[in-house]
Amino acid sequence: MNSMNLYTEALIQMLVERAEDGVQMSEVFLVACGGSLVDLYPAKFFLAGESCELRSELYTANEFVHAVPKVLGERSVVILCSHSGDTPEAVEAAKVAKAAGALTVTMTHNKTSAIANYTDHNIVYEWGDESSVKNNPMAITLALCLEIVQQTEGYSHYNEFQEALLKIDGVVRTARSKVGDRAKTFAETYQNENLFYILSSGASYGHAYGFAICSLMEMQRLHASSIHSGEFFHGPFEVTDKKTNFIVLVNEGRTRPLDQRVITFLKTYAKKYVVIDARELGIGVMPAFVVEYFNPIMFYSVLCDYREALAKIRNHPLETRRYMGIVEY
Amino acid sequence: MNSMNLYTEALIQMLVERAEDGVQMSEVFLVACGGSLVDLYPAKFFLAGESCELRSELYTANEFVHAVPKVLGERSVVILCSHSGDTPEAVEAAKVAKAAGALTVTMTHNKTSAIANYTDHNIVYEWGDESSVKNNPMAITLALCLEIVQQTEGYSHYNEFQEALLKIDGVVRTARSKVGDRAKTFAETYQNENLFYILSSGASYGHAYGFAICSLMEMQRLHASSIHSGEFFHGPFEVTDKKTNFIVLVNEGRTRPLDQRVITFLKTYAKKYVVIDARELGIGVMPAFVVEYFNPIMFYSVLCDYREALAKIRNHPLETRRYMGIVEY
Repeated sequence: MNSMNLYTEALIQMLVERAEDGVQMSEVFLVACGGSLVDLYPAKFFLAGESCELRSELYTANEFVHAVPKVLGERSVVILCSHSGDTPEAVEAAKVAKAAGALTVTMTHNKTSAIANYTDHNIVYEWGDESSVKNNPMAITLALCLEIVQQTEGYSHYNEFQEALLKIDGVVRTARSKVGDRAKTFAETYQNENLFYILSSGASYGHAYGFAICSLMEMQRLHASSIHSGEFFHGPFEVTDKKTNFIVLVNEGRTRPLDQRVITFLKTYAKKYVVIDARELGIGVMPAFVVEYFNPIMFYSVLCDYREALAKIRNHPLETRRYMGIVEY
Repeated sequence: MNSMNLYTEALIQMLVERAEDGVQMSEVFLVACGGSLVDLYPAKFFLAGESCELRSELYTANEFVHAVPKVLGERSVVILCSHSGDTPEAVEAAKVAKAAGALTVTMTHNKTSAIANYTDHNIVYEWGDESSVKNNPMAITLALCLEIVQQTEGYSHYNEFQEALLKIDGVVRTARSKVGDRAKTFAETYQNENLFYILSSGASYGHAYGFAICSLMEMQRLHASSIHSGEFFHGPFEVTDKKTNFIVLVNEGRTRPLDQRVITFLKTYAKKYVVIDARELGIGVMPAFVVEYFNPIMFYSVLCDYREALAKIRNHPLETRRYMGIVEY
């Protein structure tokens, strides 16, 4: 049994049991805060595009708690992620989900978390540079949602998706081996900048957002914002000039033309932009139909090297905080 | 017959006809770009929270076109908005929707638009300072989605929602009469700033995004980013200091505590922040259960006065562009 089965086996069993009781799942809620919410985004994009039967909603935990969706109930799967396992809003969201009778799945890196008290299935995931990316929450959530679709309506690319889950660690390793020098060059070139726009599309938009709010705003106290590549030309691009900084995450897959269109524009009107292209970094060895759902897993790992290099040259360690976990809020 | 009926009557008729043919609607796609996408957001929040039967998805048009959701078909309602009616991505999205057999509803301000060639029901809406906000696309989309829910599963607050649609113009007038001086003070105080974070939650998050990308980035060439009030404490707040500028749109309704929590934090750690509070501006006269869906309509009108004042003092007219509609992209 490979490690992915450990995460999904219990969920499949519970789905089968509910089906035997005549309860067909009708929706999946993906609920978390900040960096953990980012990790759920690829699964939302997958469900929105590939499922014909399942409704899916992505919620920041405190909105889910305060404006509980009317449909929440025994036909709902709620997947919650909290790295610490103790984020109050996420714990409260798990309580709300469990109390409504939803099939509640929690993910955390903490073996003794509060969130594990309000769940049908708690997953303690691996983390850190030595862990396998397929055992990180982004891949686990994709694997869980793959099984939910498979159990509900079947998924014609199920085997390719499983193959991709097995291949992604090797793909990420290759990509990281290519970007070491680029990350250093990025850090040297942009060390004195204080505002970045991060662009992407498809499954990776969540990680454009994540790099902005977690890596730059939270960990480096730099101003940052994500922009969807498809939205760029409908307002945001008016700020483009030779001084404004952009980082573009170019996907492999159907939304690639959206990201490429941004690059074409920036080539003419900007000067300070960085392109991270999943195709050029080797993601093309993944099965073609499902490759697009795996772009963000590669981007996250690669961007960790970029932010590490930036933190080092700026002498601002990634762990530094002035408010989070320090003051009351 | 009031004007709202003009917009919704044809849709209701088409829903009834599809139902008679045995076709029950199962999902609503809300598709547009930039400022028009912003106008669809409150309806997405309404459907996600209030409907038990309907799946709903909000898509920027070019992503919808390139990654067509598998479920799109005759059981889908697709609501598209393009102010000019000629935005290529939105026109293409209408083509895709119509070709898939979806019930396609288009909204535009242009009486001779390209998008009207690919629709089952085209709505030419009012626009400008003299128009009634209930005849603007945000309210029309809410009214359309209200009817879709009512036809599909019934909505217990249907009458209150209709009452609110009739009341919103008066509420907005009152609010605008209160903010004239405040908008001037805002413009005087912040005229030399070049970066703003806009925060809100619930139905209004879309307008936090809209004020950032359209009013500030597009119309004023200022740097800006929206942050969901619930997400603020999970990364973004680390950039807070006495020099960073925030605008907080405080909702009436269930997510109000999320916005208030931001204010409480900013009171201690920031200095330059502006609070626009829908309750204080008089939105409380609306029916209690549905009031939260109308916050963004008030915020949009009020924020138009803020941006107008800013444009005037900065001597940068709102119509000024350097790329949009000027260069190729």
